[in-house]
Amino acid sequence: MPHGEMTTSRLEAFSDGVIAIIVTIMVLELRAPSQPTWPALLKVAPVFLSYGLSFLVVAIMWVNHHHLIHAVRGVTARLLWSNLNLLFWMSLIPFVTDFLGKNYREPVTVALYGLDLALCGSAFYLLRIELVRQDSGNPEMVQYHAGVQRKNVFASALYALSIPLAYVSIYASFFIFALIPAMYFLPEKKLAGGYEPGA
Amino acid sequence: MPHGEMTTSRLEAFSDGVIAIIVTIMVLELRAPSQPTWPALLKVAPVFLSYGLSFLVVAIMWVNHHHLIHAVRGVTARLLWSNLNLLFWMSLIPFVTDFLGKNYREPVTVALYGLDLALCGSAFYLLRIELVRQDSGNPEMVQYHAGVQRKNVFASALYALSIPLAYVSIYASFFIFALIPAMYFLPEKKLAGGYEPGA
Amino acid sequence: MPHGEMTTSRLEAFSDGVIAIIVTIMVLELRAPSQPTWPALLKVAPVFLSYGLSFLVVAIMWVNHHHLIHAVRGVTARLLWSNLNLLFWMSLIPFVTDFLGKNYREPVTVALYGLDLALCGSAFYLLRIELVRQDSGNPEMVQYHAGVQRKNVFASALYALSIPLAYVSIYASFFIFALIPAMYFLPEKKLAGGYEPGA
Amino acid sequence: MPHGEMTTSRLEAFSDGVIAIIVTIMVLELRAPSQPTWPALLKVAPVFLSYGLSFLVVAIMWVNHHHLIHAVRGVTARLLWSNLNLLFWMSLIPFVTDFLGKNYREPVTVALYGLDLALCGSAFYLLRIELVRQDSGNPEMVQYHAGVQRKNVFASALYALSIPLAYVSIYASFFIFALIPAMYFLPEKKLAGGYEPGA
Repeated sequence: MPHGEMTTSRLEAFSDGVIAIIVTIMVLELRAPSQPTWPALLKVAPVFLSYGLSFLVVAIMWVNHHHLIHAVRGVTARLLWSNLNLLFWMSLIPFVTDFLGKNYREPVTVALYGLDLALCGSAFYLLRIELVRQDSGNPEMVQYHAGVQRKNVFASALYALSIPLAYVSIYASFFIFALIPAMYFLPEKKLAGGYEPGA
Repeated sequence: MPHGEMTTSRLEAFSDGVIAIIVTIMVLELRAPSQPTWPALLKVAPVFLSYGLSFLVVAIMWVNHHHLIHAVRGVTARLLWSNLNLLFWMSLIPFVTDFLGKNYREPVTVALYGLDLALCGSAFYLLRIELVRQDSGNPEMVQYHAGVQRKNVFASALYALSIPLAYVSIYASFFIFALIPAMYFLPEKKLAGGYEPGA
Repeated sequence: MPHGEMTTSRLEAFSDGVIAIIVTIMVLELRAPSQPTWPALLKVAPVFLSYGLSFLVVAIMWVNHHHLIHAVRGVTARLLWSNLNLLFWMSLIPFVTDFLGKNYREPVTVALYGLDLALCGSAFYLLRIELVRQDSGNPEMVQYHAGVQRKNVFASALYALSIPLAYVSIYASFFIFALIPAMYFLPEKKLAGGYEPGA
Repeated sequence: MPHGEMTTSRLEAFSDGVIAIIVTIMVLELRAPSQPTWPALLKVAPVFLSYGLSFLVVAIMWVNHHHLIHAVRGVTARLLWSNLNLLFWMSLIPFVTDFLGKNYREPVTVALYGLDLALCGSAFYLLRIELVRQDSGNPEMVQYHAGVQRKNVFASALYALSIPLAYVSIYASFFIFALIPAMYFLPEKKLAGGYEPGA
């Protein structure tokens, strides 16, 4: 072979770079209020809250992505492109966040936010399918991946549900947006528990 | 020598950083529609599609750049500056993408998009010339490089063709813009096939 | 465990990426004056000064963050999320800086700037609590952490004080904003003194 | 010592990140022309040319910074802050570039561009003073540094000269802006010659 394999660390560094930029450029959409008063600031609050929510969502995705890449055994073309597919949908998060923050009472923006997160969830699913294939000879890993995938399907289905739900009640969709980070946040704590010195 | 060589990993890390930023800042040009309605969103669709196309183009360039840098044996000044030349033309992709997305029916913007990608292709060609020189003693590598260069010349010529073609029919130019990623996407799959565990 | 630990170097690389972006995108808010004249430039001076101040503040945070992460012994979930909490408040610095620069005589913007820096200081405090827990068996380290925390509490309290103070006199708040970098800048010099060859 | 030294690779990675962002965000100031016509594009040409010039200037600074950091023996506080001082003045390049591109016939913008580059040159000088101190026992290195500093003083003085010169003739200042990259570009080629395989 005239050219070397892409290492997982290379893939991770590039992904980390893109994710770091995604999470940070969102703040550029927090425009200074036109008036230097608290009421004017209060009007920016929905933009700020949607930024906070998306920061949390992207942070969770970053942590999950990190764990996922660590389980990779070889950078296949399928893995490379599944990963770029995920980064593409993640790169739209600043756009849907900004649109939501500026029009947070409109079903369209709520639905679009849910749609992009559902697509991110599906992209994670596709990415892990490649890992399952790599680990097909290892029953313990197959079982581990199955557990993560179940949770992922559940989260993606909820995000998909938030799309039509936005037309019934945007609050129901917001409830889903708040529920999923909470759901991911807690188990991550448990999973990572094993790292602690003394454990 | 009072100062050390630049390692290829350093060169790659810097290039990866620039490419990660290029691919991500393009999303800043996806401005939230003025009205929170689906028809208003639909008007943004061309901007979105041009973003998607450029994301794919830059992703392919990133993968090719990675393979190219892995074949490097020494960071010469010529290599360094050929690489910076490539990054310069790549850095203009967000600009031509935005201009195309906002005026996708105008020959000017279509031609300019084709021009920048033709220049990126030419920059890749110049960069590989330096590699061919480094590998001139290795017939297998010379043959490998010749194959990649042929494909590159073909793609760059097509992009160059899309410039005048935009004044005949912008659809013909769009066909070229869709054809080249497809052409690169498929062989990359084949080339990377050797990485797969079990292969 | 089916997935590996996150290494401190990984955590640091991601944090460095986010901090590098925070410090650099602030310059995007330095808009070119409408008129190419020195008086027009002079009107931009407060925006420039607030940029310079925030550059210094973020640079100090980066240096402190670096020292902090080097003392980490294991990346626990608590550490990971405390770090993301810090990055979140740091990511708001470009926003409060821009708001301050454009309305530097208004108590609201001065108070908001102080508030965000107080929250960053508190986030540093929370992050180090996890380190203290990790090093609880090492009296020398416990004492070292206690010293850093005292200084941190002092700085955060001053930043918190600058919030109500802005309504008394914005100059008093500005004095605090200038004092704290000076306070951090000097000891850092002493601490780092041990690195010098010949020392 | 309770906390480890900052390694030069860490310092370089952070600096590379900031420089990669500086060089890339400048393209965000290339706004799509209001009309999709070649005459409208032609009006953007000065903005494009100033972008191209600054890309080259920052690229040369990146290469020089890389060589400089490789000669570092220990990351002292003085080195750290001299480096942050350099990054600060470099971070203003997108601002002065944008201002110049939009008002390229005005002495103010030309002078400001020259001023920022003179400050960058001076920051490089200060940074290398610390290196000279570190290498004071090595006559060969002292001589090498002295040569680089002479060139740096010459370039910085020319940039400083371009400030008053802009009020005599902006073309004289532009001549300096073109001359210095040429001057740096050529010797870099010679210095790097030793890297080439077979040399």
